[in-house]
Formats: sequence, C-alpha cells, structure tokens
Amino acid sequence: MSSNEQTGRAGIVLFGHGARDPEWAGPMKRMAARIEETAPGTPVALAFMEFMSPTLDEAVDRLVRDGAGQIRIVPVFLAQGGHLKRDVPLLVDQARARHPDVGMTLVTAAGEAEPVVNAIAEYALAG
Amino acid sequence: MSSNEQTGRAGIVLFGHGARDPEWAGPMKRMAARIEETAPGTPVALAFMEFMSPTLDEAVDRLVRDGAGQIRIVPVFLAQGGHLKRDVPLLVDQARARHPDVGMTLVTAAGEAEPVVNAIAEYALAG
Repeated sequence: MSSNEQTGRAGIVLFGHGARDPEWAGPMKRMAARIEETAPGTPVALAFMEFMSPTLDEAVDRLVRDGAGQIRIVPVFLAQGGHLKRDVPLLVDQARARHPDVGMTLVTAAGEAEPVVNAIAEYALAG
Repeated sequence: MSSNEQTGRAGIVLFGHGARDPEWAGPMKRMAARIEETAPGTPVALAFMEFMSPTLDEAVDRLVRDGAGQIRIVPVFLAQGGHLKRDVPLLVDQARARHPDVGMTLVTAAGEAEPVVNAIAEYALAG
C-alpha cells in the first residue's frame, strides 16, 4: 500500500517562529515532551519558520518517513497575525504538494485557544 | 504622601512584542479581560515593544496615574529569548527611572510557565 493516509498514525508538528537565541526553543521542547508524556507514541516534531531548524518541510518529511498518515500542524504563535494568515499557509501548501497522500491540517495559533489565554492570565496574576 | 508605593494597588502590564496586523493583539485583550474577571479591580494595561501602542512607558504612566504602587510586568512572549534578555530589561529600567517611587517587577516570559506549556501541549493534542 503506497499511501500512509489509510495506514499511518496521526502526527503533530509544533511549528514556531524561531529566534536567534537557542534557548528560545526551550518551551517548545517541553511541549513536545508533555505530548509524549500525555499521549505516548504520538509522533511529534518541532519546526521553525526562521533562525532555527528543522524547517516545516524537514519536520513533515521525518514524520511521513516514520509512518504518519495524518499531520496536525500547530502554530506555536501567540496570535493569528500576518505570519499565520499569509506565510504559514503557503509553507503548508508546499508540504502538501510534496506529500499528496498525507492529510495535513493547519490549526489556529495556539495563543488564540481559550485555555492558553486563561493560563497566561493566571500566570500574570500569580505574583 | 507623595509615594504610591505604600498606598497604591498592584497593577499588571501585559507586555507583548506587537505586530503589524491589528488582530494580533486579540489574545492579549482577552487575557486582560480574563484578569479583570478573575480579580476584579486589578489595574491592568497592555503594552507593546513595536508596531502597536501604547509603549511600556505609556502603559506604566497610566497605571501610576491610576494609583498603582507596584507594577508587575508580564512578558507575553513564548520564550525567554533575546528580547527578554536584552531589550525588555532596558525598557523596564527606563520605566523605573521615570517612577522611582513605584516598585516594578519584570517576570519571566509567560510561555516558560509550566501551566502555559501544558495548555499549549493539550491544544496540540486536541484534534
């Protein structure tokens, strides 16, 4: 069977902006670790728009090689701004063109999700 | 009494990077609303490093004018990267110099907080 779509597991790409400071990726690594802890065996990869590697294409290639048939691309961005409206959909379209047999979903920026908004508000109040 | 420090309430500045897209500020506005809902009467202001207004100085001035004697500056950033290590402390020092009678605390980037990391991981898994 040539298609991962019917056979493969669902993978997750945590896709962030990236930054020059290598420590910037720390929380994203902790998110990946938390996913592995909460849902053991979930294929998960980090990817970055700039400054850091791997790229979205490289992360998707790795998940597909590991057998993912569906990939959920989760923007680890604070809000649905210009990058999410313009740049990221183009990158996802490129990844789709490279892997037409893999279903890819690009969801809304994580920072827009109610529980994330609330967690940041609670952190702000915690002092 | 000339000092707010002994008399004033504790205020919060939600300090974000800012972006060209005005919708980018949406989640930060929702965080401020959540703070007002959870802790009614807490003085809270948004501030931005670039692209959006007000600046940190403007937000701090407003909170001080409203009687804040302590201000907690909460970076709404995903990680403790270059901006938080270099640029933001300088801006906070400027604000402190303008208001030596107001105690200001700059906390770690919200995205580093465990509950925020976990909320994003849960969002990533939610599909």
